[in-house]
Amino acid sequence: MAVQDVFDPSGIAVVGASDTPGKMGYEAVQNAIEFDGPAYPVNPAASGSVFGREFVDSVGAIDGPVDLALVCVPAPVVPSVIAECGEAGIGGAVIFAGGFAEAGADGEQLQDELVAAATEGENEVDLLGPNTSGFLVPDESLYATFATGIETVPAGNLAIVAQSGGLAYSLAFQAENRGIGVSAMVGLGNRATVGFGEAIAYFDGDDRTDAILLHVEGSDDARGLLETCRAVETPVLAYNVGEEDVGDFAESHTGALTGRYELYEAGFAQYGVPTVRSTAELLDGGRALATCPRPDGPNVGVVTAQAGPGIAIADRLKAAGATLPSLDPETQAVIEDILPGITFSANPVDTGRPMPAFGDVVAAVARDDTIDIVLVYELYEGGIGYPTETLEELVSAVDKPIVFATGGPDDTLDETLPELEALGVPTYRTPEAGADAVAALVRAAKRTRTPDTVRDGTEVSR
Amino acid sequence: MAVQDVFDPSGIAVVGASDTPGKMGYEAVQNAIEFDGPAYPVNPAASGSVFGREFVDSVGAIDGPVDLALVCVPAPVVPSVIAECGEAGIGGAVIFAGGFAEAGADGEQLQDELVAAATEGENEVDLLGPNTSGFLVPDESLYATFATGIETVPAGNLAIVAQSGGLAYSLAFQAENRGIGVSAMVGLGNRATVGFGEAIAYFDGDDRTDAILLHVEGSDDARGLLETCRAVETPVLAYNVGEEDVGDFAESHTGALTGRYELYEAGFAQYGVPTVRSTAELLDGGRALATCPRPDGPNVGVVTAQAGPGIAIADRLKAAGATLPSLDPETQAVIEDILPGITFSANPVDTGRPMPAFGDVVAAVARDDTIDIVLVYELYEGGIGYPTETLEELVSAVDKPIVFATGGPDDTLDETLPELEALGVPTYRTPEAGADAVAALVRAAKRTRTPDTVRDGTEVSR
Repeated sequence: MAVQDVFDPSGIAVVGASDTPGKMGYEAVQNAIEFDGPAYPVNPAASGSVFGREFVDSVGAIDGPVDLALVCVPAPVVPSVIAECGEAGIGGAVIFAGGFAEAGADGEQLQDELVAAATEGENEVDLLGPNTSGFLVPDESLYATFATGIETVPAGNLAIVAQSGGLAYSLAFQAENRGIGVSAMVGLGNRATVGFGEAIAYFDGDDRTDAILLHVEGSDDARGLLETCRAVETPVLAYNVGEEDVGDFAESHTGALTGRYELYEAGFAQYGVPTVRSTAELLDGGRALATCPRPDGPNVGVVTAQAGPGIAIADRLKAAGATLPSLDPETQAVIEDILPGITFSANPVDTGRPMPAFGDVVAAVARDDTIDIVLVYELYEGGIGYPTETLEELVSAVDKPIVFATGGPDDTLDETLPELEALGVPTYRTPEAGADAVAALVRAAKRTRTPDTVRDGTEVSR
Repeated sequence: MAVQDVFDPSGIAVVGASDTPGKMGYEAVQNAIEFDGPAYPVNPAASGSVFGREFVDSVGAIDGPVDLALVCVPAPVVPSVIAECGEAGIGGAVIFAGGFAEAGADGEQLQDELVAAATEGENEVDLLGPNTSGFLVPDESLYATFATGIETVPAGNLAIVAQSGGLAYSLAFQAENRGIGVSAMVGLGNRATVGFGEAIAYFDGDDRTDAILLHVEGSDDARGLLETCRAVETPVLAYNVGEEDVGDFAESHTGALTGRYELYEAGFAQYGVPTVRSTAELLDGGRALATCPRPDGPNVGVVTAQAGPGIAIADRLKAAGATLPSLDPETQAVIEDILPGITFSANPVDTGRPMPAFGDVVAAVARDDTIDIVLVYELYEGGIGYPTETLEELVSAVDKPIVFATGGPDDTLDETLPELEALGVPTYRTPEAGADAVAALVRAAKRTRTPDTVRDGTEVSR
């Protein structure tokens, strides 16, 4: 797969490298040298070195393995740079400049020239962008961007694939602030050749990635996007923006028409790709999809130690299409045995307040065959804490998602919740965030892949 | 106003006080003694002291000013305790026990007895609860609850009035974790005599309170709630739960029927009470309402340094009923002057990336008479920072809400955002949180109070 040259290069060239702080070509070199492989600053007009690396005159003059060029030159020069990259055997390029398809007729023509330069030479060049802020692979210290302050984004198992570079960074910083690691963060920009389809397929094959999070503004490669979502094995979750008509602002952004919102929503629903309504929800749902086994169905068992949050959760789950079935009578009997006169033993189960037997109630619900997904809500109470041991047993005993939502002072939660996370129980700090994560699992349960058919290119109507 | 005895007591009695750690009557005393006024443990069966306070045999035997009783005795004993309180001239009580109207026919009868005891004696007693976890007034160190770990909830200007005590605590801890202060946090529970109407009216007259945040599960005093919302001056924001039928779980909770969701939504909309969809949104919107001047209309001007988040914001605002009008041609000319060839100069205004002139663009939009509310989005970029000085000037020069949303590593934001907050610019850390806060302002702009009519008790149809 050629996009490998983009996302997994052996070496990097920064074209338009600069030794002037603040310039894009300077920031890009500063980021590139963090990479575990070699990085070369390229600029025929520069001499000497930057960050200890000698300037090279052209990509053809680089003496070493290079698959990826970070292109920091102005738009008009980009096509010729890409042609040189192709001649030099560089198979991937990130193009930061704007002024292409998003910028009217002249820009569209320039983008056509760019694609021709990338595809018509002896060696093809895969293009991320133009009009992108690039990508990150934290585990490789690969920061293919001119943005600063991104080295602290932690490595993890979520791949963020965003149409907008700015939104990608908004997601990456949110992830960092919440201690959520990413396998990659990609801003697609204008998608000259690397679009959603290529990126999703690539990260589906990436060992570090356990869930793929999309930000979609109404891409023009709807077909590629939806078909790839159907074909891949890795769970995919989408933040689909563009419900309302925001005029020509969106088109001016990454050269895509919005207004296909309903098409995407329907397509995603059909292929079991849950959609969310915000960046925060995208990360919340992504963590659940990446952590939990895929549920067998939409039946959620809710156990709460406080009724009010339990009602908010049940309300939100039902609105999202989840089912809260009555528990098996045997389960209800077990619960009544554990807590005679329990406040409410149907579903949600409400224990009234945290108590030592809370974990036993959770276990009874988790072991009920009617239930596909368990959502627990319990405000933190000192002296009682969380039913960690029970949850640990359950995670290995029942092959179902177990999701935990809570509230309390952050210092308490910071200390206790990582334990649960380490067991494979995703944790959330508001009732609604827990419900939204479970809603993503519910919708993902509908997923029915038909990968072979799709890989043949045959259309299947269902 | 009699509920003053509940929320602003001169002294507190804890009835059913205990010296056994873990018991409700112990935790309640531990909280009560934090209060700036006197606190008396009452228990005829106990002797000696607890936390250095001598046990008293009965509320009648207390030698000192007491307006509020924290009632920690089991349900069947509560009516007689309340009768004693009335005889002793104690005008307010918080009743923690469950087993009243939420618990079937017997419980309903007990609650009737309780109300009779509170209202039929010589002195009336206002009842918060039963079936509540109480309330907090952090600024007075008044912790009328058995819950632990709540002394760290900071004092501030938001009054949380929740039907559910559990949800109230979930909100209070979220507020604490985000550095948001509350003037009060109240769990209403069964609302035997103190309901939404009484609490909202009280906090409308409270100098510390600049916005009132409601959690409503489908109260049975719909009329009182909605009429009070119309009458009060303080901005009100509501989290209305119960869109979906969650069966008899909700009714088993605080003795209220849900299923009135649409009634409330319509009523709130009519009276300019914005509604939200989550606890996090309630706090976000509440901060905007408490901080900003009331906008003249729904016209939002969005200035963004990154297009993707700007599109997400515009989409969300439009879905929430906001208008993003074209800027005045003069404003557009000013912006084109500041940034010739600007990426997008309509509305949203997109500067492409953060830059020194960003503040000038914000100022041009804020000074446009077409615009009622300004929402700024800018990812943090070191070396450029935020247009703090410009925002400071604008806050005093234009009498409009100015809301700021951003992203970046928390340590950077923790350092820079409090400056903006101090200027009267509420700040948010995701694009959607900023949009939701502005959506609350937009809906609040519709508010048309008719206090005199309502206080007469005359119904007005509009």
